[in-house]
Amino acid sequence: MSEHKPLILVTNDDGITSHGIRTLANLMTQLGNVMVVAPNSPQSGMGHAITIAHPLRLYPTDIFPDFPAYECSGTPADCVKLAKNHILKDRKPDLVVSGINHGSNTSISVLYSGTMSAAIEAAIEGIPAIGFSLNDFSRQADFSHTEAHILAIARNVLEHGMAKGVALNVNFPAKQPEPLKGIKICRQADAKWQEVFDERRDPHGRRYFWLAGEFVNFDPHAEDTDEYALAHNYTSVVPCKYDLTAYDTIKEMQDWHL
Amino acid sequence: MSEHKPLILVTNDDGITSHGIRTLANLMTQLGNVMVVAPNSPQSGMGHAITIAHPLRLYPTDIFPDFPAYECSGTPADCVKLAKNHILKDRKPDLVVSGINHGSNTSISVLYSGTMSAAIEAAIEGIPAIGFSLNDFSRQADFSHTEAHILAIARNVLEHGMAKGVALNVNFPAKQPEPLKGIKICRQADAKWQEVFDERRDPHGRRYFWLAGEFVNFDPHAEDTDEYALAHNYTSVVPCKYDLTAYDTIKEMQDWHL
Repeated sequence: MSEHKPLILVTNDDGITSHGIRTLANLMTQLGNVMVVAPNSPQSGMGHAITIAHPLRLYPTDIFPDFPAYECSGTPADCVKLAKNHILKDRKPDLVVSGINHGSNTSISVLYSGTMSAAIEAAIEGIPAIGFSLNDFSRQADFSHTEAHILAIARNVLEHGMAKGVALNVNFPAKQPEPLKGIKICRQADAKWQEVFDERRDPHGRRYFWLAGEFVNFDPHAEDTDEYALAHNYTSVVPCKYDLTAYDTIKEMQDWHL
Repeated sequence: MSEHKPLILVTNDDGITSHGIRTLANLMTQLGNVMVVAPNSPQSGMGHAITIAHPLRLYPTDIFPDFPAYECSGTPADCVKLAKNHILKDRKPDLVVSGINHGSNTSISVLYSGTMSAAIEAAIEGIPAIGFSLNDFSRQADFSHTEAHILAIARNVLEHGMAKGVALNVNFPAKQPEPLKGIKICRQADAKWQEVFDERRDPHGRRYFWLAGEFVNFDPHAEDTDEYALAHNYTSVVPCKYDLTAYDTIKEMQDWHL
């Protein structure tokens, strides 16, 4: 690897064989030296899980002809930890990118997102980081319309750096007949998943449930949210921080009798 | 169940047979009608994971003589979703409590904590919620010194409610010879885990890794953090919010060329 080029670590939560990570890693070769460390199986919905009750496996793989890659038995957050503290000991990446996720991670979904947890994990390590997600769950999703925005956002992060404790959550609309209208810096929409549990019986007569649900947006008319941007064919960028302290609530709690 | 008493849902991430959840559920009977819905196996480190790639199992259990309980094959966040949307359809809990975790969840550990994810999940559903954790990983940990504070904090939450989008992260010092000094409302300390991967070989000669590490506190002298409170034998209370938007960073990004 050339030492003067930025070192870019690429991971994801759909697993190392997904189209999204291949698209992202190939794009990043335009900006720097690429290394991939990604899960060996899908990790969607794993949130900020880490693997502490089981050992981790990590193997080099040659599925990418143009850059080194490793597959890991753990979660996206594990991948970032292993890359930084085991594989890359002597050199800190200049940028961590995660994705492109097959499926959006707007609004509240950031909490459940393995894609964004990898980016947050990098931010904890003081590395500028971006999670990219496409609002299309298909395994064969078309990522072609996202490429110019991915490069623009990654270039800006390499140039400006990121504020301490912050990572970017970038979401793209699914491919439309019209080109993307632009990039909007947004806040996380106030929304939630309204779950429905689909109850079934297995061949032995025992009940089981599939978690399913509908997305409910409490902010449908607010123009400054990620949901609004996506619904209007813009790319959304939400800067996310991992200091969860609700500072306003600290003040309100001074009245409590504790 | 009596209808005029508060309905209190109890969950955790150490699993339904742990001492911590039994202690917490028994305490809550002093404040209302208790229902337990908790994982059937340890879920430590699961963060805000949800189970979407596998079906969920949910069975009633009679391990608690004084209140109804269900064990679930999923994560703490799954338990809250199943309790609210499947078991309790007609009545929303008045309070969700999670814990008492065997091990602290201060500072950055809130991101990896299944205990706190259950509380955050409840906050998303508009239910006041508290995660309780003890700075003692032992399966036989002594929780006796925490009981008065648990009741005081839960009573205050039932009385005052919680701000929209906020849940409390409560941590207790391990039992000391001296009694607890009091309760401090705190912010999340700026800290991280410095991971070390313990590399071993299995009986087949293949490498594997255990995730291990040391906690590094970048805020050792700040008196307003949860870490400081615990180090000085106080109970810490951090109000946590799930809107991760870094609003200050949105302003700073106006200079970017996007």
